[in-house]
Amino acid sequence: MTGKPTLAVVGATGAVGAVMLQILSQRADVWGEIRLLASPRSVGRKLTVRGEEVEVVALSEEAFDGVDVAMFDVPDEVAAQWAPIAVARGAVVVDNSAAFRLDPEVPLVVPEVNPHAVRVRPRGIVANPNCTTLTMIVALGALHAEFGLRELVVSSYQAVSGAGRAGVDTLRAQLSLVAGTELGTQPGDVRRAVGEDTGPFPEPVVLNVVPWAGSLREDGWSSEEMKVRDESRKILGLPRLPVAVTCVRVPVITTHSLTVHARFQGGVSVDRAREILATAPGVVLCDDPAAGEYPTPADVVGTDPTWVGRLRRALDDPTALELFVCGDNLRKGAALNTAQIAELVAAEWAGR
Amino acid sequence: MTGKPTLAVVGATGAVGAVMLQILSQRADVWGEIRLLASPRSVGRKLTVRGEEVEVVALSEEAFDGVDVAMFDVPDEVAAQWAPIAVARGAVVVDNSAAFRLDPEVPLVVPEVNPHAVRVRPRGIVANPNCTTLTMIVALGALHAEFGLRELVVSSYQAVSGAGRAGVDTLRAQLSLVAGTELGTQPGDVRRAVGEDTGPFPEPVVLNVVPWAGSLREDGWSSEEMKVRDESRKILGLPRLPVAVTCVRVPVITTHSLTVHARFQGGVSVDRAREILATAPGVVLCDDPAAGEYPTPADVVGTDPTWVGRLRRALDDPTALELFVCGDNLRKGAALNTAQIAELVAAEWAGR
Repeated sequence: MTGKPTLAVVGATGAVGAVMLQILSQRADVWGEIRLLASPRSVGRKLTVRGEEVEVVALSEEAFDGVDVAMFDVPDEVAAQWAPIAVARGAVVVDNSAAFRLDPEVPLVVPEVNPHAVRVRPRGIVANPNCTTLTMIVALGALHAEFGLRELVVSSYQAVSGAGRAGVDTLRAQLSLVAGTELGTQPGDVRRAVGEDTGPFPEPVVLNVVPWAGSLREDGWSSEEMKVRDESRKILGLPRLPVAVTCVRVPVITTHSLTVHARFQGGVSVDRAREILATAPGVVLCDDPAAGEYPTPADVVGTDPTWVGRLRRALDDPTALELFVCGDNLRKGAALNTAQIAELVAAEWAGR
Repeated sequence: MTGKPTLAVVGATGAVGAVMLQILSQRADVWGEIRLLASPRSVGRKLTVRGEEVEVVALSEEAFDGVDVAMFDVPDEVAAQWAPIAVARGAVVVDNSAAFRLDPEVPLVVPEVNPHAVRVRPRGIVANPNCTTLTMIVALGALHAEFGLRELVVSSYQAVSGAGRAGVDTLRAQLSLVAGTELGTQPGDVRRAVGEDTGPFPEPVVLNVVPWAGSLREDGWSSEEMKVRDESRKILGLPRLPVAVTCVRVPVITTHSLTVHARFQGGVSVDRAREILATAPGVVLCDDPAAGEYPTPADVVGTDPTWVGRLRRALDDPTALELFVCGDNLRKGAALNTAQIAELVAAEWAGR
């Protein structure tokens, strides 16, 4: 093959798709043609990528002809149907849905943690992890390499853009309804002000936190919580790692935060953990409470790394560390990691 | 003694004081005179309690003459100075500051968990726990009685009213600045809109979560986190209980939420845990994800109980339970528990 590989972006008009086009415009340009695919209702729209307008074309079998790498950001059922078609037409698919993540023949890749996994893909598909898993996994991968993970207890503070544009629109509409009021002090007053339509969330999300994300799985667990457990195990290569997770939605537009209680094989040194995190690729250590320095979504949004703060050794367990991590769920949590995986695949072309 | 005991409310004009007067008006009336004390700048203000206007008088030694029980809701240093004075004048002090909570001669009481502790108070002082500890401790006390607690990992979602009226005013002002905007998608855009003055919080709290509450203690821990650990141990009578806590402020007016990973001495039955929580005094089990039922601050605010939802057994540890709990930090988290303790003390008068 000569020249640069052709990239298709499937789902180019969604919330993640929009960030993907920004990221493709900002990173080193390894691509030849970039083709934008979407559902029929978006066909003909013009989107800007690498400073040029590109017209959206319909998702079809023929649209994958000549495509080397296809990045998918579409609902699970659309990915399940169309990824094998793209592969049959000769593309390597990098998929950001949950459709293939736990398939043993599909690698689940975080370039800072398990880059080599990208090379073995018998189905021609590489999966991108869930945004909540991606909020913590780069930092945890670095700590695991040094100390050996033994257990995780995780709580999330998830932004509304994890539920797509509808999530953002819902919070913004609710903000306008409660601003300038005295709401938030009587049972149900926020619910009454917001009305019956709570968008993609089961409860009002403004002036509230909602302990639910995703769909109901067995024994009261949410799909989002199961993803964090199952995907962390697969990425880290620890299939029996105990992982306890509670996922909670908070009124933040973009950037997920997590508290992490991580227990390791033996005693841990906070100083050594600090060194590791200060130098790990893709991680920024932002941790000086005396100076008022800790990561928050308001500062992290729009940036690429995983930000880590509040690093402490557990007071009562010399083998455990506490962390507070933040990451932009649309960038590293979705579009950026997908782009990084696609670049790993593209590097194979350069190496031929 | 004949008649009903005289009550003093010290700090009657604060955020908790206001709720205290409501609660005193709503509960069975065990009090004779209720005297309202505050700092000199509030003297002469008239506040309503039990349907009557009562004039605020200045905090002074003489103001405690004839007082049987004095409830304090004032800063730590004010309580440290004035509680012993009230005791010297003959009152039993129920104190909601941190000044005496860890004093071995001061009981730390949650009436649903350790009511008998109130009777032994060599210093004449009974302490009321911190609001974050109180969010979970009634539910955990009930589970501990059955299963025997062995470890806690806790993350908080704390309301701004935990920082007093200034916290509420700050969030409301920030809400007005971001409503109707597209803020929350670029690094620092919320910070710039909100300006330098972030009130009692180190970062903007609107469209954000802030992983800090209280002051800096050793090794990067916050005072709020240490309180949850140390007070839980004391109330439960488990002085070596391992407790890991991360406290995070969220844009909610009132009602704290916590995720709790609780490990017990042996295997736990979720069905039995459900029975216990469904019948425990002071607890409401609100847990049916299939029907969209889980507690959230917007519904819990203004109510008395501890609300428990998302009850699950840890997937990878048969000895651990996961819970999401909510409690009004101004009611059970402060004024209500203080009133309940004061009523336990008052019951000693009735029993004489």
